[in-house]
Amino acid sequence: MTIRVAMLGCGTVGAQVVRLLTEQAGDLTARIGGEIELAGIAVRRPNRHPDIPAHLVTTDAAALVASDVDIVVEVIGGIEPARTLLTDALRAGKSVVTANKALLAEYAAELFAAADSSGADLYFEAAVAGAIPLLRPLRESLAGDRITRVMGIVNGTTNYILSAMDSSGAGYAETLDEASRLGYAEADPTADVDGYDAASKAAILASIAFHTRVTAADVYREGISAVTPADIAAAKALGRTIKLLAICERVDGSRTADGAEAVAVRVHPAMIPRSHPLAGVGGAFNAVFVEADAAGSLMFYGQGAGGAPTASAVLGDLVAVARNKVVGGRGPGESSYAALPVRPVSQVDTRYHVSLDVADRAGVLSAVASVFAEHDVSIAAVRQQGRSADASLVVVTHSAPDAALRSTVDKIAGLPVVHEVVSVMRVEGEEP
Amino acid sequence: MTIRVAMLGCGTVGAQVVRLLTEQAGDLTARIGGEIELAGIAVRRPNRHPDIPAHLVTTDAAALVASDVDIVVEVIGGIEPARTLLTDALRAGKSVVTANKALLAEYAAELFAAADSSGADLYFEAAVAGAIPLLRPLRESLAGDRITRVMGIVNGTTNYILSAMDSSGAGYAETLDEASRLGYAEADPTADVDGYDAASKAAILASIAFHTRVTAADVYREGISAVTPADIAAAKALGRTIKLLAICERVDGSRTADGAEAVAVRVHPAMIPRSHPLAGVGGAFNAVFVEADAAGSLMFYGQGAGGAPTASAVLGDLVAVARNKVVGGRGPGESSYAALPVRPVSQVDTRYHVSLDVADRAGVLSAVASVFAEHDVSIAAVRQQGRSADASLVVVTHSAPDAALRSTVDKIAGLPVVHEVVSVMRVEGEEP
Repeated sequence: MTIRVAMLGCGTVGAQVVRLLTEQAGDLTARIGGEIELAGIAVRRPNRHPDIPAHLVTTDAAALVASDVDIVVEVIGGIEPARTLLTDALRAGKSVVTANKALLAEYAAELFAAADSSGADLYFEAAVAGAIPLLRPLRESLAGDRITRVMGIVNGTTNYILSAMDSSGAGYAETLDEASRLGYAEADPTADVDGYDAASKAAILASIAFHTRVTAADVYREGISAVTPADIAAAKALGRTIKLLAICERVDGSRTADGAEAVAVRVHPAMIPRSHPLAGVGGAFNAVFVEADAAGSLMFYGQGAGGAPTASAVLGDLVAVARNKVVGGRGPGESSYAALPVRPVSQVDTRYHVSLDVADRAGVLSAVASVFAEHDVSIAAVRQQGRSADASLVVVTHSAPDAALRSTVDKIAGLPVVHEVVSVMRVEGEEP
Repeated sequence: MTIRVAMLGCGTVGAQVVRLLTEQAGDLTARIGGEIELAGIAVRRPNRHPDIPAHLVTTDAAALVASDVDIVVEVIGGIEPARTLLTDALRAGKSVVTANKALLAEYAAELFAAADSSGADLYFEAAVAGAIPLLRPLRESLAGDRITRVMGIVNGTTNYILSAMDSSGAGYAETLDEASRLGYAEADPTADVDGYDAASKAAILASIAFHTRVTAADVYREGISAVTPADIAAAKALGRTIKLLAICERVDGSRTADGAEAVAVRVHPAMIPRSHPLAGVGGAFNAVFVEADAAGSLMFYGQGAGGAPTASAVLGDLVAVARNKVVGGRGPGESSYAALPVRPVSQVDTRYHVSLDVADRAGVLSAVASVFAEHDVSIAAVRQQGRSADASLVVVTHSAPDAALRSTVDKIAGLPVVHEVVSVMRVEGEEP
């Protein structure tokens, strides 16, 4: 049996997919029980791909999708034309393997509906955390468990920048410049540094982990551009480091106003203890913690981006989808039966680290502490330092609703004894 | 659609499977698209399970398997009666989910043949590394990649003992006693401490990772009973720690005598750098590193044993197998097409750490070094200490065939200038 594959796109990832399809053809045939035949590769600028056999190259992606192919592999990225091409493919019964996180984070329901209309498969392991097998474990290995939390580092660019700021003490802007120079940041780094990329991945992870629908718009998002050397220094002083985290949580019914179970999904920088396994994840690596009722804590670690690692994930999906074509059957479809509401971040329990420059006189701590008390925020630890005109006061809170923590900080900033709010950062990875 | 499940065994893991099946019945039905019905539970001593509804309990496992059930879940462990029961089930077209590592490590080919004869599924995620999704990622997520190495901590008991020896400096026997007292070691700890459990898991991992057949008998095995406080101290002095590792390697054709690609699978204690991610894996946790050509390095971490974590893995398989019954299709069968020969450990390249008590006089290093040179073993680092009658000499080698390293150590032990071979330990996790 021969399975005809259409490739849409042939950039960094696509070129590696083509290479691996060629180099490992024999192995893939044995593993699938049928032969993969590359039917065509749709690209925008054919003259940029001199190494691809000319008869495979086309600029007409729609015609390629409509032609006699069994599987469509999409590595173009972005919403259009990918959305239309893949919806058409799925409706026509052609299974899809895609690495497109933006598309999945926004239009998963539509794509799955198209897949269901024809019984086609839709796989997208490469959309989150590159080479790390993560979506398949969440969708399949943990299908008999109740996942309560997914927390991870899912964007390499921001992780590189934060790691570099931590080592050098340098500021955000100059570190970003260096990252761009070294090729760790794109020419337009917005999607990475402002957290859009991580938010798309968080939406996909939450949807799968909690069997519900979460789109990128549901994800609370803060990027790393406001992280200062003062934040980094404050973290260091407490044995912590700052990471951009994607956090997907199940919110217990007992913790919500209406008693209904819900989910909360957020992306923001946070302090984590240096002893936390995520603290050691450097550079362009990704790592994701998963907590489930029966399984306990699990961690997945590996390369989160790059041509070959992402291609490995694409090929794994391609083998699965091709096997389904050969032996019959179908991979898991959308599982959104739980239909959980999404809580805004204001209602999510979190913890804050607040570092203040305060007047060095009696009564300051009492003034500050009373603001926390007013907002029903319990203080976990306080550290006061300095014997000059200025003193520093560091407060780490216990868990409290994010809105209460914000209001507390706003009010504290206005206290006459507080000269400056030096650093405000959420704290994750431990209860003190 | 109702899927009838027979449970064989109801110990620590089985009781948790029953609990989760009951507590999560609604979720499981939604995820499967059909209802799981527990048809019966075969146990040896019915009076020990007062919490199971009496009508489900039977002592006749064979009759339960032969009855009108769709899936058999086996958590008895051991070879017989599990082997006969599961072979019968598979031949009769009943899919099997098992946590039985000993059985899979020895009779995987026979079981898969039985499954193929009827088109049934055989899943066994829980057999290796408890709750950690590992076999599914290897079998499916990395199906388009070429795995070159799998190295991990897959036995919690030995990891607990080695971690405790590392912290306390105590000897093996007393640490094992304490582990037994605390419930971390079985009454008969042989399977764990002598490496049989890890060897079974290594055989399963190697078979799947390299698409070939490896049985427990093919695995070179050393347990931890010979690890001494001197070994631990020697490791510490070099910034290393000792772990019992299961290592599955692809041996490149260029490194074998006949030019044919091969695999090598071994379980033994080894020194790894304290900075290595596996070094931080403490207590009963498991962690496995996977290296693949395209994906690069991946790590999987989580609870390697225990009722609920292992039950999570069983349930994940059960959902997959039940879905296959509902939607049609079949999971991956045995993939042993590569049929790679297994190299004995003597031909595997490894590195040694050797710590010697030597006479403190000129010419000792030269005498020792010449023995290494004779065996064509290159030295990576030497450290000499002491200004008394005895001096200590520590040698860390570069990679060399294990047989050459052994012969070198044997010959060195006989040198007149060598008073004692204090510690010999393989080194993993870095090239210096």
